[in-house]
Amino acid sequence: IEEKNNSTLLLLLNELHYADIAEIINELNLEDATYLIKLLDSEKTSDILTELDNDVRERILGNLSPQEIADELLELDTDDAADIIAELSEERKKEVISHIEDKEHAKDIVELLRYDENSAGGLMAKELVKVNENWNVLTCVKEMRQQAEHVTRVHSIYVVDDDDKLKGRLSLKDLLTTSTKTHIRDVYIPKVDSVTVTERAEDVARVMSKYDLEAIPVVDESGRLVGRITIDDIVDVIREEAEKDYQLAAGITQDVEADDNIWKLTKARLPWLLIGMFGGLGAASIINGFQEALRQFPILLSFVPLIQATAGNVGVQSSAIVVQGLANDTIRGEVFGRLVKEFSLGLINGIAIAAIVLFISHFAFGTEYKVSATICLGLVTVIVNAAVIGTFIPIFLDKRGVDPAVATGPFITTSNDVLGILIYFLIAKLILGF
Amino acid sequence: IEEKNNSTLLLLLNELHYADIAEIINELNLEDATYLIKLLDSEKTSDILTELDNDVRERILGNLSPQEIADELLELDTDDAADIIAELSEERKKEVISHIEDKEHAKDIVELLRYDENSAGGLMAKELVKVNENWNVLTCVKEMRQQAEHVTRVHSIYVVDDDDKLKGRLSLKDLLTTSTKTHIRDVYIPKVDSVTVTERAEDVARVMSKYDLEAIPVVDESGRLVGRITIDDIVDVIREEAEKDYQLAAGITQDVEADDNIWKLTKARLPWLLIGMFGGLGAASIINGFQEALRQFPILLSFVPLIQATAGNVGVQSSAIVVQGLANDTIRGEVFGRLVKEFSLGLINGIAIAAIVLFISHFAFGTEYKVSATICLGLVTVIVNAAVIGTFIPIFLDKRGVDPAVATGPFITTSNDVLGILIYFLIAKLILGF
Repeated sequence: IEEKNNSTLLLLLNELHYADIAEIINELNLEDATYLIKLLDSEKTSDILTELDNDVRERILGNLSPQEIADELLELDTDDAADIIAELSEERKKEVISHIEDKEHAKDIVELLRYDENSAGGLMAKELVKVNENWNVLTCVKEMRQQAEHVTRVHSIYVVDDDDKLKGRLSLKDLLTTSTKTHIRDVYIPKVDSVTVTERAEDVARVMSKYDLEAIPVVDESGRLVGRITIDDIVDVIREEAEKDYQLAAGITQDVEADDNIWKLTKARLPWLLIGMFGGLGAASIINGFQEALRQFPILLSFVPLIQATAGNVGVQSSAIVVQGLANDTIRGEVFGRLVKEFSLGLINGIAIAAIVLFISHFAFGTEYKVSATICLGLVTVIVNAAVIGTFIPIFLDKRGVDPAVATGPFITTSNDVLGILIYFLIAKLILGF
Repeated sequence: IEEKNNSTLLLLLNELHYADIAEIINELNLEDATYLIKLLDSEKTSDILTELDNDVRERILGNLSPQEIADELLELDTDDAADIIAELSEERKKEVISHIEDKEHAKDIVELLRYDENSAGGLMAKELVKVNENWNVLTCVKEMRQQAEHVTRVHSIYVVDDDDKLKGRLSLKDLLTTSTKTHIRDVYIPKVDSVTVTERAEDVARVMSKYDLEAIPVVDESGRLVGRITIDDIVDVIREEAEKDYQLAAGITQDVEADDNIWKLTKARLPWLLIGMFGGLGAASIINGFQEALRQFPILLSFVPLIQATAGNVGVQSSAIVVQGLANDTIRGEVFGRLVKEFSLGLINGIAIAAIVLFISHFAFGTEYKVSATICLGLVTVIVNAAVIGTFIPIFLDKRGVDPAVATGPFITTSNDVLGILIYFLIAKLILGF
């Protein structure tokens, strides 16, 4: 179909949803993709642009003139437009903004670019419907009709005073059932949840999903209404937040995707492998320190991988539950009580596993009584230790204001590996007396 | 405040949002909680019930009579009511349902109970606004006004034929701007996305967030409109989906929370620890098999933890990226290309780490040339192997229709641990020739 048969192509594409066209374009080479974008009208292409993969969009934008980009942005809500423009170089940013015809729209986009992308300011759109408390219902309806033209979906009507400060919201039903002379200040609902521009995106997500809100107004430090955030923006935040914690747990520092290039993936993965490496070298020197003594009981070394793997697994399990609990605000009560619980949990799991190992090692490896006792006691101690550390560290970091998710994954695995091996050999020393 | 001072308490609580009251009640003991629930009117308490922690809700419902529960359910949308009633025992379910006054509501709830909670049917509510294509605009507006009474938020108006089959949707604007005599079939928009009742919840979430939908109609196998799903239900699905993958990666089988009891947590965690245990025992027998030969080169054993930890970490990193890519549908292209990429990535990381280890082991441990070579070659091979396996297994499982997330965490760590140690010793045998 790629033989420049414009009319057939247009007919075909106009039937499709922009998200589907975006998927097709992601698969095309740059030339064909740019060709398609230029072929379709800007109302559709602007939506397609927001749905494209980052790297594909970057390359397509590189092929468009500032004027062409400006035309696309004109069709978008301010928040989506700001997201796209933020990806350009400083110089092109200025060029594109100067080409935007609607000066009001351009001003809004420039304002949004000021905010951090992970804050309420970075999420919000300038498009909203607001009315002054001093207007009467008639003025209000007129003004609203005009404002609503720029707003894709009117979730709420916000009420402000002369200083633009957020006072409350207006129910559409009340507006329609009161006389046209009534003043807004006599009918609005003064209770309205709002967030400030500097609030972190994940906190906004928490408030909105807790109170089941479909949109929330954003105010600046002095309470002036500056924008609103809708639930579809929040869906992305929630997904990214959960994915970030998962990636950290898996030992991936940066926000990367499977399709990123090798260099970016290496940068995200190597640092955690280095932590693991130093842990491994630490373990090597511990074992080396016990080398002489271990000549007598070589079987002890065979169980090092078991001790290490178990310690790592338990640590990850404990920390994952705590990190998720902290993220969802479901962790309540005292730290002490939680540690006691993990201690008991570790004890139960530890005894269960030690019993099985005792049984198997006796029959399969024929280990003598004292060695078996060492291995089992070592297992239980190491498991309890890993459970308690895995719980304590994330809570401790959270109290210190550090994202507890960094404590999961390779970090907790490595420290538990090394500590576990040390504990194991110390117990061996105690029981076998070398 | 807990001194039965009803009027002050009521004044205080009526100011609060139901989600906040739910948080307070989660903290109270059962007696006080039940007292509060009975004190407040059912319009507020029914919303509170949906927000409570599962275990708290279960205990409070245990303290209420079937009639009281039925009254609460009457205030809720069918989907929330069905979720609550699903937690009761079979016997109480029937009792409560027989006490629901509105028979239509009761019938809808019973219907929703039939569906799997992780399917579109389990997510949907029966509350929606639908009109027949054969009505004229006037009838339509009258019927809509009546239907809208039961619907909290009207997202869309759906159009059906005489068989209740979904035909399309109606724009409110079109409805208001056409003459009252016009038939609906002449003005409706025939393009509407829908899902079938049996579709999996996560697929519904994917469709809705891809097309930025705030609500989607649900049809049965023969295309009849049976319900609708709104975006706030989807937010929970997305969160749970991401959390489930994270928990599986951390080696936690069931959906547990930090506040669950020890028995439930043990059941979720012990199975994975057992996998790790068998891996550890496997490693022990491998090392045991090389025991004799290793007498000559005891230093080799010191580096087992390093090999093992690195293999585990690399495996988790590779699989996490692939699992997330599969979940987000961003993985494209051939399996072969992806494996080549992971191979190169593993090679780069492996060589970087091996170089550092070579340097450190030479100076800190004074290992001889051949042993150093063994350790480094072992590291590189093990890393590349772990990267390729970590990529291949999730893709393989996904193609077979198994959730690839089960391949992450302890499973991938353990298999890489054991395989890594085996590879390491085989290389040692080759180089050192024992």
